[in-house]
Amino acid sequence: MKPTKVPLGLFAATRAIAQGKLSPQDYLQQCVARADEREPSLHAFVARTPTDNLLQGVSDGEWAGIPVGIKDLIATRELTTTNGSPIYADQVLGYDAPIVAHIRQLGAAVFGKTVTTEFAWRQPGPTVNPFNAAHTPGGSSSGSAAAVAAGIVPLALGTQTVGSVIRPAAFCGVVGVKASFGAVPREGVFPLSGSLDHVGFIARSVNDVAYAFNLLRNKVAIEPDSIVLPPVPMNTEVGIEPSSAPRLAWLRTPFDDRVTVEQKQAMDKSVAQLRAKGAVVEEFSLPDEYWTGIDAMFCLLECEGGAIHQEHVKRFPERSSVHLKELVEKGQARSAFEYLAARGLQQRLRADAATQFKGFDAVLTIPATGEAPEGLAFTGDPVFCALWSFLGLPALTMPIARSAKGLPLGLQLIAPYRQDAHLLRTGRWVELSLPAA
Amino acid sequence: MKPTKVPLGLFAATRAIAQGKLSPQDYLQQCVARADEREPSLHAFVARTPTDNLLQGVSDGEWAGIPVGIKDLIATRELTTTNGSPIYADQVLGYDAPIVAHIRQLGAAVFGKTVTTEFAWRQPGPTVNPFNAAHTPGGSSSGSAAAVAAGIVPLALGTQTVGSVIRPAAFCGVVGVKASFGAVPREGVFPLSGSLDHVGFIARSVNDVAYAFNLLRNKVAIEPDSIVLPPVPMNTEVGIEPSSAPRLAWLRTPFDDRVTVEQKQAMDKSVAQLRAKGAVVEEFSLPDEYWTGIDAMFCLLECEGGAIHQEHVKRFPERSSVHLKELVEKGQARSAFEYLAARGLQQRLRADAATQFKGFDAVLTIPATGEAPEGLAFTGDPVFCALWSFLGLPALTMPIARSAKGLPLGLQLIAPYRQDAHLLRTGRWVELSLPAA
Repeated sequence: MKPTKVPLGLFAATRAIAQGKLSPQDYLQQCVARADEREPSLHAFVARTPTDNLLQGVSDGEWAGIPVGIKDLIATRELTTTNGSPIYADQVLGYDAPIVAHIRQLGAAVFGKTVTTEFAWRQPGPTVNPFNAAHTPGGSSSGSAAAVAAGIVPLALGTQTVGSVIRPAAFCGVVGVKASFGAVPREGVFPLSGSLDHVGFIARSVNDVAYAFNLLRNKVAIEPDSIVLPPVPMNTEVGIEPSSAPRLAWLRTPFDDRVTVEQKQAMDKSVAQLRAKGAVVEEFSLPDEYWTGIDAMFCLLECEGGAIHQEHVKRFPERSSVHLKELVEKGQARSAFEYLAARGLQQRLRADAATQFKGFDAVLTIPATGEAPEGLAFTGDPVFCALWSFLGLPALTMPIARSAKGLPLGLQLIAPYRQDAHLLRTGRWVELSLPAA
Repeated sequence: MKPTKVPLGLFAATRAIAQGKLSPQDYLQQCVARADEREPSLHAFVARTPTDNLLQGVSDGEWAGIPVGIKDLIATRELTTTNGSPIYADQVLGYDAPIVAHIRQLGAAVFGKTVTTEFAWRQPGPTVNPFNAAHTPGGSSSGSAAAVAAGIVPLALGTQTVGSVIRPAAFCGVVGVKASFGAVPREGVFPLSGSLDHVGFIARSVNDVAYAFNLLRNKVAIEPDSIVLPPVPMNTEVGIEPSSAPRLAWLRTPFDDRVTVEQKQAMDKSVAQLRAKGAVVEEFSLPDEYWTGIDAMFCLLECEGGAIHQEHVKRFPERSSVHLKELVEKGQARSAFEYLAARGLQQRLRADAATQFKGFDAVLTIPATGEAPEGLAFTGDPVFCALWSFLGLPALTMPIARSAKGLPLGLQLIAPYRQDAHLLRTGRWVELSLPAA
């Protein structure tokens, strides 16, 4: 059997369909064929919409015929919503999370529910890395990253509480964005930690995630100007306009000794390429207090996640992982004062970050320590994502290289709170300035 | 010496000044004369703007010549901001809280800083009840309520975390409103409990507080339509339009045995008068779970207030009251899970209240157990305000009668979250339908 071709990416597919060059049904069938080929070994989906339903359900709209992968922590009116937990194995909610309803309203289809770790915490699902089945795809948005990387869907929704969009996207060689805290609607998403949870987008280019973000972001924004990109007409092949050559703050972190030589070399090479194209890249560090934010973030997560899951662990001990039990135990030991101190630090540093980043278009850093770890038990160290989740700052990852084992390596860009539009434009410049990874 | 006349109320004064019937300077001087007469025994002010500065500082604007009392917990660029604590006895902040800046921008003047209990918690200041100096004015917004009741200022800002606007307003026979949580800007206000703190308005009529609320409310409202009243032209003597005869839910509470016979009789009489004018008043009760909200409210207050004040108590034990020390001790003993359970209940019941109140324009209840208690040590039981502060629902009090000792008794109206405009219109109908108290 001849291997299937990778269907067009999100932006290109919507244009081809709008211009009548591709029928929605043909596009959907290409995606189904791709899934039929890759999914038996990939295990990216918990449940899929039957192909007949997909083809018959095509409706009008800017995204007519676009199949979207929905992380299985997000409510959909049909298919199961298992939250990655055997406790909810048979749960069919009968309603859509508002962001899913919005996706359907655009004419797009729910292609399927993608594998998440247990409640978006640590216990992994069955998904493998599309580049090497012996390696993790990362988590918790494992299935979303893998399905996009395998070319099954042009867009998937993920969620990030610590590093759950950026890390799997980087491990799977695709583009992921976690916008500013609050910038994307998260109603109908099973919470892990209310002061940290974000919904994110995974696609195959910066242009594609920017397009998704711009349509699906929260419309009741406090400072709308800073997060809105102008809409792109359907009759153009050109995506969002890149920024001019940016000034990038190349971040040193206290965890740089965890980074692999390959990842360091890939970053050095990318920086040289970006400088050659005109970017200014300067070494940069943050005050030490910022790095205490990672402990504070775990405090919030243990308190909020523990409070949410104490009932699960109590009522269903045999269907709760040791990771979940440990989260509850840690949360139980936390005082209200500890919790409030962490919230206070979060608010203070979120506001302060814009001052620290002043003079730069974005902070440049790594998304993970290196390639995806071997085995499926551990989805990887989220330390290079954690601070941006704590602060609620917009973060974007894109692939830059492959490891010796052929696994993807990426970079990450960060901007001040609610500077999402500028981050995406800067990311587009970076993407256009680097050779395809 | 002939006693001074009570200067016009807020709405009437602004109209008289705009129409050239009263000069801003004359109005200010009437208020100064009133203060000079009453303040020596009232002790409503911590600091006053010198009269020359008031008269010379008159600027253009809808509120030109209007003197406003600012609770001494709210930042002002001159005068002290003591927060009611000896720790801050000499603090001059040099900047205005945004709501104070807005008041000045309207042409109004900061008449003075009004007495608050220590950090808006329990330790009282020196203010006495304007109707009987042997009785408390209530708290924590003691000076704001007393200054308005004494006719010194037509408007004062207060804050409410449990019952700190409604209770003193009721004890002093004036009108107070605490709008929906988040509906009035509170930046620059020293916090007591972030999830409970509200800024409120105290004036001499519903029309006056509605007018102040409408100009000074948060302009970035999530559901602006429900909190906005149409502006009233400067050339009209008519205030906000009252609702039609309302349907009122007359609330039974588990604390009704604390209510004095006088307060009960006053309410019965008011209800009869309102019914005679066409209101439908039905007995009403809430599910028991609502009343657990009062314990949850104290949990939030102990955690958030305790976390804020632990440094004060540690560094300045001799300048911190036993009440403040007790707050910190109670907060220290709280777990993060207890805190988060209280926040969860708050969010759930805030949303549910609209369902409970369905079919009614407002809930009718009492603002306090009865007249202001004797003595200054205890500012009164806040139990009839606490639930509305916990839920963040808009609350309005107005005077309805006098006790045998000549002290004011009031009623309180409550509406669902962000139904502020309708509450004020309903309150205006009630005010116009009752004989002057």
